[in-house]
Amino acid sequence: MRRQSHGGEVFAASRMLSMPPDAILDMSASLNPLGMPQSVGRAIRAALPHAVHYPERDAHALSEVLSASLGIPRGRMLCGNGSTELIYLAVRALQPARILIPSPTFSEYEKAVAAAQTTAPVARECTIDDFPLKEQNGFRLNASEFIAAMEKMTSRSVDGDQRSASSVAFLCNPNNPTGTVTPRKEMLHIARAAEKNRCYLVVDEAFIDFCPEHAIIVKTLDNPYVIVLRSMTKFYALAGLRLGFGIFPTPVRKKIGDIREPWSVNSLAQAAGLAALADNAYQMRTYRLIAEEKRFLEDHFRAMDIGFVPSCANFYLLKMRNAKAVMDSLFHKGILVRNCRDFRGLSANHMRIAVRSRRENMRFIKELARCMES
Amino acid sequence: MRRQSHGGEVFAASRMLSMPPDAILDMSASLNPLGMPQSVGRAIRAALPHAVHYPERDAHALSEVLSASLGIPRGRMLCGNGSTELIYLAVRALQPARILIPSPTFSEYEKAVAAAQTTAPVARECTIDDFPLKEQNGFRLNASEFIAAMEKMTSRSVDGDQRSASSVAFLCNPNNPTGTVTPRKEMLHIARAAEKNRCYLVVDEAFIDFCPEHAIIVKTLDNPYVIVLRSMTKFYALAGLRLGFGIFPTPVRKKIGDIREPWSVNSLAQAAGLAALADNAYQMRTYRLIAEEKRFLEDHFRAMDIGFVPSCANFYLLKMRNAKAVMDSLFHKGILVRNCRDFRGLSANHMRIAVRSRRENMRFIKELARCMES
Repeated sequence: MRRQSHGGEVFAASRMLSMPPDAILDMSASLNPLGMPQSVGRAIRAALPHAVHYPERDAHALSEVLSASLGIPRGRMLCGNGSTELIYLAVRALQPARILIPSPTFSEYEKAVAAAQTTAPVARECTIDDFPLKEQNGFRLNASEFIAAMEKMTSRSVDGDQRSASSVAFLCNPNNPTGTVTPRKEMLHIARAAEKNRCYLVVDEAFIDFCPEHAIIVKTLDNPYVIVLRSMTKFYALAGLRLGFGIFPTPVRKKIGDIREPWSVNSLAQAAGLAALADNAYQMRTYRLIAEEKRFLEDHFRAMDIGFVPSCANFYLLKMRNAKAVMDSLFHKGILVRNCRDFRGLSANHMRIAVRSRRENMRFIKELARCMES
Repeated sequence: MRRQSHGGEVFAASRMLSMPPDAILDMSASLNPLGMPQSVGRAIRAALPHAVHYPERDAHALSEVLSASLGIPRGRMLCGNGSTELIYLAVRALQPARILIPSPTFSEYEKAVAAAQTTAPVARECTIDDFPLKEQNGFRLNASEFIAAMEKMTSRSVDGDQRSASSVAFLCNPNNPTGTVTPRKEMLHIARAAEKNRCYLVVDEAFIDFCPEHAIIVKTLDNPYVIVLRSMTKFYALAGLRLGFGIFPTPVRKKIGDIREPWSVNSLAQAAGLAALADNAYQMRTYRLIAEEKRFLEDHFRAMDIGFVPSCANFYLLKMRNAKAVMDSLFHKGILVRNCRDFRGLSANHMRIAVRSRRENMRFIKELARCMES
């Protein structure tokens, strides 16, 4: 049975288990346990009467606020129907012939490359350089080795047809599903190397709101090879609404403008984004809660002798023997965790779990202990 | 000044005119004047607590209902982030080398073809056969001539590289921006010719809910060359939410499944679609209102000696001298109409207007009369 290929499949699980969605504890999707900010709910209800109209095509008001608050020129920014739309658009705009991807990492980069190839009128090989993150090093990225891999990739000769095609390196920071962060200083080092090697660097900062000190956006504005993607669905628990944004070099931004369809970001998501950005109280409560609950979970992992990767995000990669049996037991109790067997570089013994509220974390830990005993 | 390149740019106009969006009369977007059904508003409010979760990836519940109510196999159907997403996906899946498009018609077909070419790793020419609809014939499509044009297109020899590439004909029925409908019988005739000539036929039925007797979906299920697209944003006034669906031949549906990104239809749009489909009372009120208001508008057009194309949809294509000056005057009074100068085959003297409520239609007619006098 194919379950939770991405996590967060609450409605499908609800049908399979004949349980109402509310009874499902979703530890598989890494969403803020505070739930959608109340300010966002109010904003959506207020925006409903306007939802008859077409959405603003460039998410004007939201883009203005993002641009001002982040210090990014308006013309470099683009809002997307989730950051996933922007991953797919970036890949189609960049037309990579060579890509460098760490493993394990978010699977959509490779899927976006495959999708772009599938629809190419004339098939072209795109070589994929896998950069394995070593488990014994806690899956931390070694910046020097990554730069060396990038240099190796870009130096490979290409035949005539491919000369115009680009090299693209992907980095998810903090990395999904490991939770490891590459410090800002090293990220900037990698960004400079990308420019030097004329290799586009797509930095997916979908979870950077949980460790904003490592964000690189403002520091790389003058680098014509850096693309930074952000999601608003994780930190603000807006997964159902779909909202992300990206900062692109001007020519890439322009090309994406030429290929994307109009109206991809719905108007309620735009209203939600505006309200979320203004909700400082929610942001502060989130930092406090996540820090507390991470301590709580880590204490229990240690007590239960469960291997976990130190995380800078709101989720943990766990490792345990008989993980499959444990996940199955949890599933039948209505607890979803993310099985990791489809991540390159991970095994069936890995699982990813989100940091939830105290009540939910306790339920998870209790059931986990039971499953591990049986 | 570039205004209303697609109609419906209420928020941009609101900023330009320093008028609140509610004060703008939008005759430029062809949306149901009843506004979003109240049942939809209730469904969205009820779905809000679930919007923290990722949307169902295949819009499961909505697809089930659509499939059952239309009599379409579930596996042939796909919901989209507006039917526009499906236009772009269909074009990328079909990789057309030759396309046949009537003019004037909805501009996104050609834009989707251009977008797909822009991102092709190896540029390939896609020839566009323009099929002009004659104004003196009321822009009605002559099915026999269209079939002849299709045969001519598909019989053209292609060089080696392009042999695998496909021929695609687009038909918007009823046609946007003319409102003319090609009767079902003729559409089925064209569909059979498409199969015979191995030419994909993309039928955009975005406005067919206003003349459902001409829908062809069920009658073409056994035709492996027919794609039918539907929008839910026009009839149900959900433009801000983005919702459409399509029925595809199995191999095309499969290919689109391979290339599209996950989660493109947000969860509130899915909830809205379910509620809208169940709202028979709203549907009945719509039919009654649109019929009455079309009589009202046509009477005034005749009295004012304004040329209009008989319409089977909820909009009219009008023609008048000094249309540009009239549109400018209307704009400054907060009334948006769709200028048609960017439709191939139309002139700056054409404009498209939506059928609105009696109060709104009266405001429009009154201001139009003033503008025409001055």
